[in-house]
This record gives sequence, C-alpha cells and structure tokens, in this order.
Amino acid sequence: MPRLKANIDLVFRALGDPTRRAIVERLSEGPISVTQLAAPLAITLAAVVQHLQILEESGLVHTEKVGRVRTCRIEPAGLSLAEQWIADRRSAWERRFDRLGNLLAESDEN
Amino acid sequence: MPRLKANIDLVFRALGDPTRRAIVERLSEGPISVTQLAAPLAITLAAVVQHLQILEESGLVHTEKVGRVRTCRIEPAGLSLAEQWIADRRSAWERRFDRLGNLLAESDEN
Repeated sequence: MPRLKANIDLVFRALGDPTRRAIVERLSEGPISVTQLAAPLAITLAAVVQHLQILEESGLVHTEKVGRVRTCRIEPAGLSLAEQWIADRRSAWERRFDRLGNLLAESDEN
Repeated sequence: MPRLKANIDLVFRALGDPTRRAIVERLSEGPISVTQLAAPLAITLAAVVQHLQILEESGLVHTEKVGRVRTCRIEPAGLSLAEQWIADRRSAWERRFDRLGNLLAESDEN
C-alpha cells in the first residue's frame, strides 16, 4: 500500500478502539512483524490485519512487506496531528483563563 | 444529564467528526449557549444537539440548563485523557530512539 497522508478524522476514529490503541501502544516500543504483533492479542490474525489496515489508512501506522514478512511500525505524523489539535485547544482555553485572571486582578485594583 | 466520567474510547470517537471538533474548538474559547453555538454551523439545531449529546457522553463537554437557556462548556478532563494517552506513546518512542542513539554511540566507540 502506498504511504498515506495522516487524516485527522481517521486518526481520531482509529484511536477510538481499544485493540487499535493496544497495537499503537505496542508499535510505540518499536517495529514488529504482524505475526509477533498478533500473538498477545486475543483476536484472529485476520482481525489484526483489518485493524492494521484502518491504522494504515489513518496514517498512524506504516506496514511494509519484505520477503514473506510484513513489518509494522508507528508513523509519528498521525499521532502528531491529533496531539497538535489537542494542544491548540488547550492553549485557547489557557489564554481564556489568563484573560479572566487579568480581569479579576484589574477588578481587585479598582 | 448527570456529569459523566471521560471515556477514552468515546473521546477519540467523538473527535473523529469535523463538526464535533468545530464545537470543541468553539467551546475552548469559552462557554456559550446551544443557540449561539449552532448559529455559525451549517446544520440544524437538532443535529447540533445530537453532536452535543455524543460530546457530553464522552466527557468532552458539559451542558447545563439554567432557566430556558442551555449553556455548553468544555470539560477539560476529556481532552486531557486523550492528550495523556498520546504523550505516553511519544515518550515510549522517544525512549526507544534514546536507546538506539546510545547503541550507535557505543558502536562508534568500539
């Protein structure tokens, strides 16, 4: 599959499933083959492959077949997209609290 | 609706929709009534209410009716849950790169 650009809708939707988060957790530790990835998960290899496809389409994971082994690794751009969106919200509400704080300080002075 | 505890599955799924992200973006700027929130969105008030319900169930948003006006505000715990999960993944892969860096430095010394 050609490398896909991370898509924020698909990234968040992909992360809304506990098995897919478990896969991303494992891959954050380092690349691994699909077979090794599937071993500790209590689901079929076919189900793992399906979850990997969703993760790959969202841009969270990249898989590559070398010979007979398909290896998966994290694609940092996907998580960064989600991280950045959340960080932007946090700074918006922190700015708001700063403004509220300034207003309170001003009203104390008056 | 009683205040709900943030649920990471529901938080990520809720954020996988561009209208719901637009709502969270607006609420990060400060609390607002449902009617004001709906005004700039090109969807019906009923659709906004439905999105708000999903956001409230996930623990991302809190709404409260005072008199005849329902006001919505961000519930920081929801976004923090998602933010923390992503931050944990980032630190896992940064630790891995540190280990790789150390290995490379050691092999240069030998």
